Amino acid sequence: MSGEEGARAASMEKIVALCKRRGYIFPGSEIYGGLANTWDFGPLGVELKNNVKQLWWKTFVHRRRDIVGLDAGILMHPRVWEASGHVVNFNDPLVDCKTCKSRFRADHLIEDKLGMQASGKTPDEMSAILREANMACPHCGNRTLTDARQFNMMFSTTIGPVSETGTKVFLRPETAQAMFVDYKSVVATSRVKLPFGIAQIGKAFRNEITPGNFIFRDIEFDQMEIEYFVKPDDGPRAFDEWLAAMKSWVKMIGLSEKYVRIREHEESELSHYSSRTLDFEYFFPGTLGWKELYGLASRTDFDLRQHQEFSGEDLRYFDQESGERFLPHVIEPTFGVERTILTVLIDAYDEEQTVDVNGKPDTRVLLRLSPKLAPYKAAILPLMKKPELTGPAWDLFNQIQDETGYQVDYDETANIGKRYRRQDEVGTPYCITIDPTTLEDGAVTIRDRDTTEQVRIPLGDVVPWLREHIG
Amino acid sequence: MSGEEGARAASMEKIVALCKRRGYIFPGSEIYGGLANTWDFGPLGVELKNNVKQLWWKTFVHRRRDIVGLDAGILMHPRVWEASGHVVNFNDPLVDCKTCKSRFRADHLIEDKLGMQASGKTPDEMSAILREANMACPHCGNRTLTDARQFNMMFSTTIGPVSETGTKVFLRPETAQAMFVDYKSVVATSRVKLPFGIAQIGKAFRNEITPGNFIFRDIEFDQMEIEYFVKPDDGPRAFDEWLAAMKSWVKMIGLSEKYVRIREHEESELSHYSSRTLDFEYFFPGTLGWKELYGLASRTDFDLRQHQEFSGEDLRYFDQESGERFLPHVIEPTFGVERTILTVLIDAYDEEQTVDVNGKPDTRVLLRLSPKLAPYKAAILPLMKKPELTGPAWDLFNQIQDETGYQVDYDETANIGKRYRRQDEVGTPYCITIDPTTLEDGAVTIRDRDTTEQVRIPLGDVVPWLREHIG
Repeated sequence: MSGEEGARAASMEKIVALCKRRGYIFPGSEIYGGLANTWDFGPLGVELKNNVKQLWWKTFVHRRRDIVGLDAGILMHPRVWEASGHVVNFNDPLVDCKTCKSRFRADHLIEDKLGMQASGKTPDEMSAILREANMACPHCGNRTLTDARQFNMMFSTTIGPVSETGTKVFLRPETAQAMFVDYKSVVATSRVKLPFGIAQIGKAFRNEITPGNFIFRDIEFDQMEIEYFVKPDDGPRAFDEWLAAMKSWVKMIGLSEKYVRIREHEESELSHYSSRTLDFEYFFPGTLGWKELYGLASRTDFDLRQHQEFSGEDLRYFDQESGERFLPHVIEPTFGVERTILTVLIDAYDEEQTVDVNGKPDTRVLLRLSPKLAPYKAAILPLMKKPELTGPAWDLFNQIQDETGYQVDYDETANIGKRYRRQDEVGTPYCITIDPTTLEDGAVTIRDRDTTEQVRIPLGDVVPWLREHIG
Repeated sequence: MSGEEGARAASMEKIVALCKRRGYIFPGSEIYGGLANTWDFGPLGVELKNNVKQLWWKTFVHRRRDIVGLDAGILMHPRVWEASGHVVNFNDPLVDCKTCKSRFRADHLIEDKLGMQASGKTPDEMSAILREANMACPHCGNRTLTDARQFNMMFSTTIGPVSETGTKVFLRPETAQAMFVDYKSVVATSRVKLPFGIAQIGKAFRNEITPGNFIFRDIEFDQMEIEYFVKPDDGPRAFDEWLAAMKSWVKMIGLSEKYVRIREHEESELSHYSSRTLDFEYFFPGTLGWKELYGLASRTDFDLRQHQEFSGEDLRYFDQESGERFLPHVIEPTFGVERTILTVLIDAYDEEQTVDVNGKPDTRVLLRLSPKLAPYKAAILPLMKKPELTGPAWDLFNQIQDETGYQVDYDETANIGKRYRRQDEVGTPYCITIDPTTLEDGAVTIRDRDTTEQVRIPLGDVVPWLREHIG
C-alpha cells in the first residue's frame, strides 16, 4: 500500500457537519456546552459502530478457530498497572505557557509546528528542541513556554464509600492488559493451544490534552485488540501473518489503498516492551495528514513476565509435545473503533455535481459506505403515501428483516428525489421503491446509491438480490 | 406470572463453579487476589453477553420503527448529575461497626436480617429500626453499629492533567440520562414523532458496598435501557404496552414463569421522579430469594424538565398536529445485562441422574439455554480423529458459519461421551457427529442436548434443520 494526497471531497468540517446533521455523531453533553473530547453516537452512529464491532468479531473470533473472546472489567486491580509499566511510563510530556496559562503536548508542538518526529524522545530532549526553536505559544504568541514535564494519563477513582479509606484504582488505559491478567484462566478452561489469541472489544480511557480533531483522539474510546500468544521462535512468522490479516481487514472495510501506508517504527521509537512495531497510517484531511490508524506490535514475553513477577503466579505455558514450560511471546494487533469509523466516513464521503429537477446546478452528497458497514442496508420507499402502496411496503420491510436480519429504513415523507438524497447522505446502498405499477406487475425498483442506476425486479427476488449484493 | 419456590438443581455455588470451570465468568483481576465485585466474562461468557445484547437490540430497536439507538459517553458534563438529582439523592445508607470496623448497608441489614421492607425509608427511619431491633454486627457479633449515614454512590474522577486544576466528573451511574441530554439532537435529526423511544446499551458504575452474590450486583455493569417519550395523557397506555413487551422478552429468553413475578411499588417507595414503578422480580436461589430483575417506571416529565432548567435549552416537543409545545412524559423500561445472564444461567442449569459407560451412577450437568442465547448453536464432532472424518467435519463447520453466521464449536478430542458432556455443560443445543457411515450415506447424527435423542439427516439438510430449530 502506498499513500499520496489527491483531491478529496471530504474535509473534517464537512464530516463533522454531516455527522451532526444526520444523527451519526453529536458533541457529548452538548446542551451543557459540551465536555471536551467526548462524543455521543446517535441513531445512525451506533449502528455503524455496532457493524464495525460485529464485523471485526466475526472476522477475528468466530471465523478463526485459534482465537477466543474476552470481556473484562474496566476497573482492574491497581497492581495490574504497576506490572504493565503504566504507572511509571504512561505519561504525556506537557508544557505550559507562563503568559496565558495554556497547556500543550510537547510532542505535538514538535511534530505539528516543527515537522519533526517526536516519539521516543525524552522530556529533556523535547525541551531542548523547543528551546532551540524558540517556540512561541500557539495560543498567545509569547515565547514563554515552560520545559516539558511528565503527567500520567490514567484516570483514577476510588472504590469504597469515602476516598480516605477507599482503594485507588484506574480506568483502564487499554484493553490489552486484561488478556494477560486472564491468560491463565483462559488456558485452563478453553482447550487452546499455541499459537492462539485472546480478543477483546471494549472501552479505554486516557486523560489527554488534545487539540480536538473530532473523534480522532477522545478521552474515552473503544479498542478492538488481540493478544496472540506464540512459541518464542514463532514470533516473526506470526507477525507477518498478522500484517497480512490486518491488510485484509483494511480492504474489507473499503478504505482506499492510496490513503493507507505502513510505517515501521525505528529502534529509538519502540516502546519499552516491544521488539518490533509498525503502524498502519491513514492520510487524514486538513492539518492532521498521515496519522496512526492501527498498530501491530511484537511485545515479546514482557507482559506475561511482568505479571508473573508482580502476581507471584506461574504463568508459564506447558507444551505437551515437548514437555517444556515457558512464557509465550505475544503479537498484538490493535484496532481503534473510533478511528475506523472516522476513516471509513472520510473515505466514503463524496460530492457529485448534478442538476436538480428544475435544471439548476446541485450537489449530491453521498457516503459510499461498504454495504457491510452501512447502518441501513436498504430503504423502503412507497412512491406515494397511499395505503395500497404503504401496505406492500411494510410487508417488504418486515420480510427483509425477518429473513436477513438486515437493518432497513422506511420513509414515506417528502418527494422521492428528496428521499433518495437523504438515503445517499447517510450511506444507504439501496433504495427500493414501491410504485403503482408494482400493484400490476409485482415488481419494485432498486436504485444503487453509487451509480444512481435503477433495476426493476420481482418482489419475490428482493431478498436474494440483497443477499447477493450485501454479502 | 406468579412465583413459588420449587426444588431446583441450581445453587449460586454451582453456577459460580460452572462459570469458572467452563470459561463463562472469572473473578476480576484474579491473579492479584481479585478486585471486589468485579467479574470478567471469559470466552463463553462474552458470547452469551453479546447474544443477550444483540437479541435485545434486534427486538427493541431494529424490529420496531418507533425506537432509535444511542451510544453516549460514560463521562458526561457534571451538571448532568446535578440536574438528574444524583449528586444529592444517589446515596447508600451505611452503618459502621465500632468494634470490628466493618461497613454495611442499613437497608440490606433491615431486609436480610429483619425481613422488613427498607426501600423508601430515610436514614433516620432505618437507624431507628436498627436500634429498636438491637441489631448485632453480622461480622463480629457486637451490638456496636453506628446510625446510618448517606454516602454518594457515584465514582468520580478528574479530567485534566492534575487534580487541582482539572474538572471533577462522574462515571455515569445509569445510561438513562444520556437519552434526556441528547433528546433534542435526536429529535432534530431522526424524523421521530411521539410516541418514540431512544434505546441504549452500555456500562454504568456504582460505588456500592455489596455482600457478593456473584454478578447479581457489580460495581461495573451493563444496562439496556429505553426512554420512551409520549404525550402526557398517553403515559398509562404506554406503560401497559411496555409491561406486555417486557413480559414477552422474559418469555423469549426462556425464564420459567414460576420464578418471575411483578411487584408494584407502593407510594412510599417511589423515587422522587416517578408516578408509577414496578419491578420484575426473580426468585434467586439461596439467601437472595425474590430480588429485582428488571424495572419499569413512569418518570413523568421530571428529567426533561430538570435538564431544561439546568441547561437553559428549550426541550419542549413541537406537535405538528396540534401546534402545541410541551415536555413529553417518559416511560422507562430498564434491563440489566448481568442479571439477565445470571437468571438465564440459573434457570438453564439442570442435573440429571444417569449411568456412565460402566453402568455406574453418574450426574449429567446441562445448561438448558435458549438456542437464541447459547454461545455455540452447534458442535461438530468427528467420531474419530482421522482425516477422512475431520475433513468433512471442517467443511460442515465452515458451511454453517458461512450460511447462517451461527457460532459453532469444533471438537475432535476425547471420547464422544465426554465431548457430549462438555457441550451439555456449556449449553450447546445440538451436537453433530460425523462417523464412518457418513462417508457411505452422506448423513450425520444430530443429538439434542435436552432429550439426548438423536436424529440422522443428510448433510445437505443440516443448515435448514438448524435454521428451523434455532430461529
